[in-house]
Amino acid sequence: MLRSIQFLGSYSGLFFHRLKLHGNHQALSFISLSSSRTPLLTSSRTPLCFHQFRASSIGSESNPDVASSSSSSPSSATFRPSGTSRRINFCQLCGGPTKHEIPDGEEKERAICTLCGKIAYENPKMVVGCLIEHDNSILLCKRKIQPSYGLWTLPAGYMEIGESATEGAIRETWEEAGAKVEIISPFAQLDIPLIGQTYIIFLAKLMTPHFSPGPESSECRLFALDDIPYESLSFSSMLVTLKLYIEDIKVGKPKFHYGIINKRPGTSPSDIHAYTLDYHLRS
Amino acid sequence: MLRSIQFLGSYSGLFFHRLKLHGNHQALSFISLSSSRTPLLTSSRTPLCFHQFRASSIGSESNPDVASSSSSSPSSATFRPSGTSRRINFCQLCGGPTKHEIPDGEEKERAICTLCGKIAYENPKMVVGCLIEHDNSILLCKRKIQPSYGLWTLPAGYMEIGESATEGAIRETWEEAGAKVEIISPFAQLDIPLIGQTYIIFLAKLMTPHFSPGPESSECRLFALDDIPYESLSFSSMLVTLKLYIEDIKVGKPKFHYGIINKRPGTSPSDIHAYTLDYHLRS
Repeated sequence: MLRSIQFLGSYSGLFFHRLKLHGNHQALSFISLSSSRTPLLTSSRTPLCFHQFRASSIGSESNPDVASSSSSSPSSATFRPSGTSRRINFCQLCGGPTKHEIPDGEEKERAICTLCGKIAYENPKMVVGCLIEHDNSILLCKRKIQPSYGLWTLPAGYMEIGESATEGAIRETWEEAGAKVEIISPFAQLDIPLIGQTYIIFLAKLMTPHFSPGPESSECRLFALDDIPYESLSFSSMLVTLKLYIEDIKVGKPKFHYGIINKRPGTSPSDIHAYTLDYHLRS
Repeated sequence: MLRSIQFLGSYSGLFFHRLKLHGNHQALSFISLSSSRTPLLTSSRTPLCFHQFRASSIGSESNPDVASSSSSSPSSATFRPSGTSRRINFCQLCGGPTKHEIPDGEEKERAICTLCGKIAYENPKMVVGCLIEHDNSILLCKRKIQPSYGLWTLPAGYMEIGESATEGAIRETWEEAGAKVEIISPFAQLDIPLIGQTYIIFLAKLMTPHFSPGPESSECRLFALDDIPYESLSFSSMLVTLKLYIEDIKVGKPKFHYGIINKRPGTSPSDIHAYTLDYHLRS
């Protein structure tokens, strides 16, 4: 996951830069609130529908340059990025300078090469990882890198071109925890529109009872379900995943969960507990 | 989904170009086969595990320039792209020329700017869409654009930065089918590593019984479950989604499905039936 770190670093820098340029914007597109320090997961049973989406979308589009303060983690920024928040200055194909306009037939501003006309599209990234069950415990890694140095996480990282989500989750688990795992089932898809990430988490089990920290981890440890260090987790996505899992285990077996993680407005980017889980759907 | 088309077009061109440069490579990393014209979905209950992944991964890495024939659809190419199959010639940030090397601490070749040192990462893209249930029928759109002009598809397209998967699926449904929908539940995640795409499909229902073709569709129609035009569908991903849905409906209610769509070696890129569904997991 080395590259993840670098990307997050540049992303944080981008947010900070944008803040300096556009410091007066409002928070947008937040759908519901949760006030507790460690919020109960909101289980919205109201299906996401067309009108709700349009309202949210229009709000964002009316403030295309909205940006946040410097965020040090993928789950901790404050506002949704617009389509123009990550500037692309040059064409990857021919090196020509870009202009930022809405292409014919489209609705969003894009970076368009002034020489060859190529449009540079940006898309959300998938972060894939494993929730590893072993003897009524869960395997966590303590991060030896920024962001969230010293905090606990599930093994996870960016999915690569040419691999499946399961292959990526297995690879990241090997790289970060030295553990060989089997995938059991899909467990969660958690979108974080604010930072253009989607977490795809699988339930998995150890093929052998061996694990050891990789270069990005200082420690790997099995935690009994009652001992999960909720106050020392790295990202909101990990907190949500673990809480959903524990809730499922209490009432039966794990389900599949979909949800959108939004930051509570006015909260610190580094407070991983200051989120809401919106449009939570189970299968 | 206008931009989807353009991207697919450029992707096809890339494959074709690479074929001319590297025409002697072998097919790699195929895990299982299916021989029927309209294959039964393989329901592999063997979990994906570390060793299977390593075998597949090593196979790919030993032929980093493997490429396929020109493919006209996102589900129809023949080989998995390597991390180097999409060449990035210039840095988007500073315009400097790139070199293609394995960065320190990483394992894959990347495009690295020779001026500012920025590493350009490439990640799989998410295609989000809706399987819309209405009066025991399914809403399909006939494509008025290439690829797969004149063939039927579920409304779907690339997820955008700043939106969730559900928002993207609702947006694409509005753009392609003029239909306002509510999301009911997540239905499928189908990875296509060969072309760096992951399909995320939600079950949805019409908020009103109105729909009409958008600019990219020539027709939208409700098909009874027995009348789905399997021989005139646009992509393997749509065929898999619809077959899984019909199987679920026959035995009860829809589940959530994860699977990897691989092309059967030696088959035509345009034959959407020439696939295998590997590591199919249900929740």
